[in-house]
Amino acid sequence: MTGDFGLLEPVAAGRACAATDDTAVVGALLEAELAWIGVLDGVESERAAALAVADRRAAGAFDPARLASAARSGGNPVIPLVAELRQHLGTAMPVHRGLTSQDVLDTALMMLARRVAGEIAEELDGAAAALARLAEQYAQTPQVGRTLGQYAVPITFGAKAAGWRQGIDGAARRLASAATPVQFGGAAGTNAAVLAIGVDPVQAGAEWARQLGLSTSEPWHTSRGPVVEVGDAFAAVCAAAGRIANDVIFASRPEVGELAESALARGGSSTMPHKRNPVLSVVIRSAAISAPGHAGVLQLAAGLAEDERSTGAWHAEWPALRSLLRLALGAAVSLRELCEHLRVFPERMAERVSGAAPLLVSERLMITLAGRAMGGRAAVQEAIDAAVAAPAGSRAAVLRDRIAVAVPDLTVGELDDLLAVDGYLGTAPQRAHAAGQRPETNGEGR
Amino acid sequence: MTGDFGLLEPVAAGRACAATDDTAVVGALLEAELAWIGVLDGVESERAAALAVADRRAAGAFDPARLASAARSGGNPVIPLVAELRQHLGTAMPVHRGLTSQDVLDTALMMLARRVAGEIAEELDGAAAALARLAEQYAQTPQVGRTLGQYAVPITFGAKAAGWRQGIDGAARRLASAATPVQFGGAAGTNAAVLAIGVDPVQAGAEWARQLGLSTSEPWHTSRGPVVEVGDAFAAVCAAAGRIANDVIFASRPEVGELAESALARGGSSTMPHKRNPVLSVVIRSAAISAPGHAGVLQLAAGLAEDERSTGAWHAEWPALRSLLRLALGAAVSLRELCEHLRVFPERMAERVSGAAPLLVSERLMITLAGRAMGGRAAVQEAIDAAVAAPAGSRAAVLRDRIAVAVPDLTVGELDDLLAVDGYLGTAPQRAHAAGQRPETNGEGR
Amino acid sequence: MTGDFGLLEPVAAGRACAATDDTAVVGALLEAELAWIGVLDGVESERAAALAVADRRAAGAFDPARLASAARSGGNPVIPLVAELRQHLGTAMPVHRGLTSQDVLDTALMMLARRVAGEIAEELDGAAAALARLAEQYAQTPQVGRTLGQYAVPITFGAKAAGWRQGIDGAARRLASAATPVQFGGAAGTNAAVLAIGVDPVQAGAEWARQLGLSTSEPWHTSRGPVVEVGDAFAAVCAAAGRIANDVIFASRPEVGELAESALARGGSSTMPHKRNPVLSVVIRSAAISAPGHAGVLQLAAGLAEDERSTGAWHAEWPALRSLLRLALGAAVSLRELCEHLRVFPERMAERVSGAAPLLVSERLMITLAGRAMGGRAAVQEAIDAAVAAPAGSRAAVLRDRIAVAVPDLTVGELDDLLAVDGYLGTAPQRAHAAGQRPETNGEGR
Amino acid sequence: MTGDFGLLEPVAAGRACAATDDTAVVGALLEAELAWIGVLDGVESERAAALAVADRRAAGAFDPARLASAARSGGNPVIPLVAELRQHLGTAMPVHRGLTSQDVLDTALMMLARRVAGEIAEELDGAAAALARLAEQYAQTPQVGRTLGQYAVPITFGAKAAGWRQGIDGAARRLASAATPVQFGGAAGTNAAVLAIGVDPVQAGAEWARQLGLSTSEPWHTSRGPVVEVGDAFAAVCAAAGRIANDVIFASRPEVGELAESALARGGSSTMPHKRNPVLSVVIRSAAISAPGHAGVLQLAAGLAEDERSTGAWHAEWPALRSLLRLALGAAVSLRELCEHLRVFPERMAERVSGAAPLLVSERLMITLAGRAMGGRAAVQEAIDAAVAAPAGSRAAVLRDRIAVAVPDLTVGELDDLLAVDGYLGTAPQRAHAAGQRPETNGEGR
Repeated sequence: MTGDFGLLEPVAAGRACAATDDTAVVGALLEAELAWIGVLDGVESERAAALAVADRRAAGAFDPARLASAARSGGNPVIPLVAELRQHLGTAMPVHRGLTSQDVLDTALMMLARRVAGEIAEELDGAAAALARLAEQYAQTPQVGRTLGQYAVPITFGAKAAGWRQGIDGAARRLASAATPVQFGGAAGTNAAVLAIGVDPVQAGAEWARQLGLSTSEPWHTSRGPVVEVGDAFAAVCAAAGRIANDVIFASRPEVGELAESALARGGSSTMPHKRNPVLSVVIRSAAISAPGHAGVLQLAAGLAEDERSTGAWHAEWPALRSLLRLALGAAVSLRELCEHLRVFPERMAERVSGAAPLLVSERLMITLAGRAMGGRAAVQEAIDAAVAAPAGSRAAVLRDRIAVAVPDLTVGELDDLLAVDGYLGTAPQRAHAAGQRPETNGEGR
Repeated sequence: MTGDFGLLEPVAAGRACAATDDTAVVGALLEAELAWIGVLDGVESERAAALAVADRRAAGAFDPARLASAARSGGNPVIPLVAELRQHLGTAMPVHRGLTSQDVLDTALMMLARRVAGEIAEELDGAAAALARLAEQYAQTPQVGRTLGQYAVPITFGAKAAGWRQGIDGAARRLASAATPVQFGGAAGTNAAVLAIGVDPVQAGAEWARQLGLSTSEPWHTSRGPVVEVGDAFAAVCAAAGRIANDVIFASRPEVGELAESALARGGSSTMPHKRNPVLSVVIRSAAISAPGHAGVLQLAAGLAEDERSTGAWHAEWPALRSLLRLALGAAVSLRELCEHLRVFPERMAERVSGAAPLLVSERLMITLAGRAMGGRAAVQEAIDAAVAAPAGSRAAVLRDRIAVAVPDLTVGELDDLLAVDGYLGTAPQRAHAAGQRPETNGEGR
Repeated sequence: MTGDFGLLEPVAAGRACAATDDTAVVGALLEAELAWIGVLDGVESERAAALAVADRRAAGAFDPARLASAARSGGNPVIPLVAELRQHLGTAMPVHRGLTSQDVLDTALMMLARRVAGEIAEELDGAAAALARLAEQYAQTPQVGRTLGQYAVPITFGAKAAGWRQGIDGAARRLASAATPVQFGGAAGTNAAVLAIGVDPVQAGAEWARQLGLSTSEPWHTSRGPVVEVGDAFAAVCAAAGRIANDVIFASRPEVGELAESALARGGSSTMPHKRNPVLSVVIRSAAISAPGHAGVLQLAAGLAEDERSTGAWHAEWPALRSLLRLALGAAVSLRELCEHLRVFPERMAERVSGAAPLLVSERLMITLAGRAMGGRAAVQEAIDAAVAAPAGSRAAVLRDRIAVAVPDLTVGELDDLLAVDGYLGTAPQRAHAAGQRPETNGEGR
Repeated sequence: MTGDFGLLEPVAAGRACAATDDTAVVGALLEAELAWIGVLDGVESERAAALAVADRRAAGAFDPARLASAARSGGNPVIPLVAELRQHLGTAMPVHRGLTSQDVLDTALMMLARRVAGEIAEELDGAAAALARLAEQYAQTPQVGRTLGQYAVPITFGAKAAGWRQGIDGAARRLASAATPVQFGGAAGTNAAVLAIGVDPVQAGAEWARQLGLSTSEPWHTSRGPVVEVGDAFAAVCAAAGRIANDVIFASRPEVGELAESALARGGSSTMPHKRNPVLSVVIRSAAISAPGHAGVLQLAAGLAEDERSTGAWHAEWPALRSLLRLALGAAVSLRELCEHLRVFPERMAERVSGAAPLLVSERLMITLAGRAMGGRAAVQEAIDAAVAAPAGSRAAVLRDRIAVAVPDLTVGELDDLLAVDGYLGTAPQRAHAAGQRPETNGEGR
């Protein structure tokens, strides 16, 4: 058996590949052609044609590998598919009548996009719900905030989960708002052939779109905005998932140990028997790294569009769009699994906060004391510099001593309050609770 | 004088560079800082600070080249800018109090994005209006449609202009719908410092956003969706403009001669005195080729985001976003000039249609006659193949003869009708009229 | 039958897909594992293992679709493949002993890269030979040169073919000079496991490389230079082919008619029976548009590499590299067919040169006469401007009149010479002859 | 003062921007034009012209901002520059005589590329020398190896430094092997104008190249291989540097603490006074993220090349190539500083190795004991699984107990040896020593 099955793209192997593979594309192409027969000839004809196609397909017709090879001579797979369809359905049926191959191919890819978008929305909903639970549960659990790789000010793990969810919600909204219009313009966007057979293009196009679950649009044969917009939305899904994966990969490093992927049987190595790799995160991250290249091809192809159909730019879109669907669905499926089974180690978070404590609130010392210190900002800075330079074990003591000197009128109680990490969580708990109570991601509102 | 001024990016030289250069960035950074003083300390303080800053700036303070060099040590330009601001405004003013450098830099870039988006919207409106006039004026003017570089079926030039406008309208809509939120979260997205100084972050953030003309949002320090969405929208502008440029470049080739850029003094060569290059289109096309790379960096940076602020991914966004603003504005300005002064040669279009005539309607012959021909589709195909193989001058005659044989009961009148290009324009005139009467692009509706 | 077979990538469907599909990858993985058994255990063991594997494979073992699904849990396909291999070969055989999955996967992809590079080299040789014939045959055939879409100065078609060949030769050279080293470092690049079983890593690595036809190298597990270098070389093949395709697409437009793809049965349409699309060029161009995105992923993955094996960056390389192999081979195969069967219409070239003639040598008028004209450069420029402004039919006359006025002492004979296109071909014929006589592209020299 | 100075690209601010800014481009353009005067008219003329140009430049002529604006009308900066040059040097000098603007612009950019490559080579040499010292010094210092974010098998820090150097050496070699040829073909690659003025193009081109320090080549006006090859090489520098930066960022995180950037005054924050960010690494990483987008534009522009000069694709190259030079030089400068001042904490590395010890050699247990254990591989795996599941403190004991059961005949001494991390360093020390003794990176050999 030859072909590609996701062997080199583990993030998408299995479900995401199956949803978008050549067989799925052939299926969508056939659906589009059959629905068109229905538009022209009525539902009975369509049903008859669909039965005949299903029969022949079961018998090996419309074989994607054969169609792929045949597509070389005309440059697109619709040409051999239509030939085969005519052969099987005979001349009585109005096969492809009034359409052009671009109508069918663009439309079929939009059908795939819409279906995959639906599947992704469901997975993102699941992930968002899991993140909401995490946000709620750990709303008050302090964690060190990290910026540029170094400890910053404290956050809570719930707030981090809320931020993750924020990205997912945004991506879901973008995906929901991207239109997936039918392409219906005939050879050069004028629907002349449809008119020539006495059919009203507006009505027929609307009916075709309705049957296929797509929106209507002017022909967009060389105005490729819809492809770019939906492609960008799939890329945004990969990015939103990727960012979470990055955080999980880091937090599940043994040096950190604050999170771990689920204990399910995953993440083994071919040689090192102790290995528990964060495989879900790793493959999600690979999708986030890969997606922009594909989205860039779509943007570029739109900008290179020419005439009434492009030479090469159109063709470059097909694998790029498919890859985006596949990566985004694969990433969303993996992300949901990741979020639903994420293991959290609050005690490790607490240990780390405690170890980092005195410096974690240096910002508060500065903002509160700069005005009170005799030497102003510089004096507070010096006190903190001294603490930074001190061995970890004596940092807190050094800091207290130096601050006391710099701000003589500061009471011990005041200083205790200033140094309390729990008192410097800002809005983290609130953000976490808000994320925990937000209804499911549904692409509505902002 | 050193620095970059657009010498290597002619599409953006002048206005688009000036709107986005380091001086403009410094200006936006300062506005953001000053507005924040206003939020904390009231409008009088802000006014005083603004006057002081303007004075110092006139005297050479806040020099972008010096700030750029100083930015190397902390990795971002806000750090030296705040230091300079503190020095000029003294400790009485709450300079940068409660903010982090990411708040200010992200916010300033969003301010630039919003302003540039506004300028672009105006230019696209102008271009759309010019295209509407062209669509209306040439709604009925036949032109050969071209697909994959070969003659397809007839269109009208008005319909082509309508298609161009469709792309522009779509890009304008996308740009209008992309939010430009203020970034306001403090060191790690918790607004802890703001709370520490007794300020309500929700209210203060809203007020800051209002003053700066931005929308509000949760902190998006590592949820980079907003940057990606606005960046994608700028890239879409370049693509929509690029597609028009491609068509103009082709149609103004001497072999084609159907269009020309305006006769204004442009397009000369350093050596060939006869040259009239389509320079506006050429530079627009360069923007369409360049933009996806920059948009890809934004998508990628979002997917590489980590912790509460990214190491490098954040920094990679800045020049990429700036380049997108610059390219999109430059392309929009050039596009408007291109559209407003485009020269159309309908007689050349007519000559070409007439020369291509018999084959331009081969689709109609097939769709109309396949069922009537004794040999079915194959017979019609053979007749057309014979015409294709014949010398250009005798094509029409060959086609008529062969069709007459293939469809014996076809009358001459019927055949005349079938071959009339004017009768096979489909919906081209209607699309053109519709585009000609649509109100200005305003990002509303679809 | 499910999977991908090139349906959406016509440039690669058939041969290029087959050479690089999941079945081919599994084949290379198995070869690498089997050769390693040979290194450790001798040629007899390897032969026995190979026979067993072939038997089992014929019976459905090592199914790529099943391996792809299984790869999800460990993140790479070598893990399930090794498990299956151990199951089939038993514990007596030293399966994968001392290797890590990265060793095998990187090595197998390099094997594919090397083989595909070999196939491409052959196709490029064929294309270069065909271009050499064209260069020689049309060395003296004038053609208009075109810059920025407008007529420039004359060239010859032979010189154009020579320029095409120059690009192909350069790409072939780059591909030949890119190393394809074996990856051999064990779990973290130290070959500790190999040493632990008493094997000398230098010797064993060299032997493994020899058997697989690869070069040797230090472990490059996180120094991804070799992947990037070979990937860039494949992208360069696509670019060199793409540039030729662009020229053929343009020259075979009916408005131009100077070239055409072969008359073989290609380029039909699903609806327009007269169509002869330049399909080979179109699909080659699609490869040139797609390739940079994939090469960018490799460059990026190299720059994101971390530790002793990357999280996600490594995984993102696999489909990107495979796509590059596939696009480059598909483009090379199509290019050779294109070049070997290209149809040239020198009479159309001559007509065009003749129509453009007076302005085609405006550069020579300026360079020769600026010093002699009474009004200097400006006077010559005015004469040429007048000709440009004149109707095409009277351009020559206007130019002659104006030049005669601007340079009173110019004789008619001198002017005739200056206006003769044939006398302004520069080095075009020589370049063409040189390209016609250069030996086959072999990646040697420059 | 307006313009860009690197404010948004800290990696390049200062030296790298100055080496490549518009002023530097204007300088290179003028050098190319002046050298050409020398080729045509002799060294005296060139000197006179150079003096005149220097004078005028000092007086404000050849202002890059003004040239940039003027470039809009012709689409490239050479046109206004030549006009200004003619104005200043008068008609007696053979300004630009026989050249076309592409000759001058391509050549000037190659001059910049060559110079910047020279500067980069020096910086990489410095970095490689520093890495060699680190490799030698820490050749035997154990460190945990990490793959997919988890502990793998032990390495030494010297071996890691050796791997870093390997990447740098490879990038230096690639940069050294990329040609920087002069572009010399005139308006359409035929050198017709040069021939028309009686000059031998081969000789003149060679002389021009010699003066400018470039190599010679056939005209490559639309065979853009040289631009792509050199651009890819600059991108490779960013990737090689980026990989090191990633490792330093991680190792200098407080959770890890194995490395730190130098203690020089860098890495402060605008709000958090305790911050010591790894700024050099962060900005290097930003270059590695940004570079592939620019390299992709060059690859793409090569594949979109058309005719004898491209419409837009050529123009898109300019800022992309410049950005690559700038990023690569900025990254190399930062990398050298990073490497020369890197702080290493071997005691932290040792602590970590010791903490991870029992599992760090699980591979050796499996490879050595699988054959001896009564239950085979599965029995060893179970023993290790038990240790993984145990609390960190008791892992070693659990592992010992379980292994003893699984392999009853194993002596304590044997087990001690198997568990000794120092005995499982593989070739790490040797690789480190080899890197420590390799001569400076010079692009020679492999």
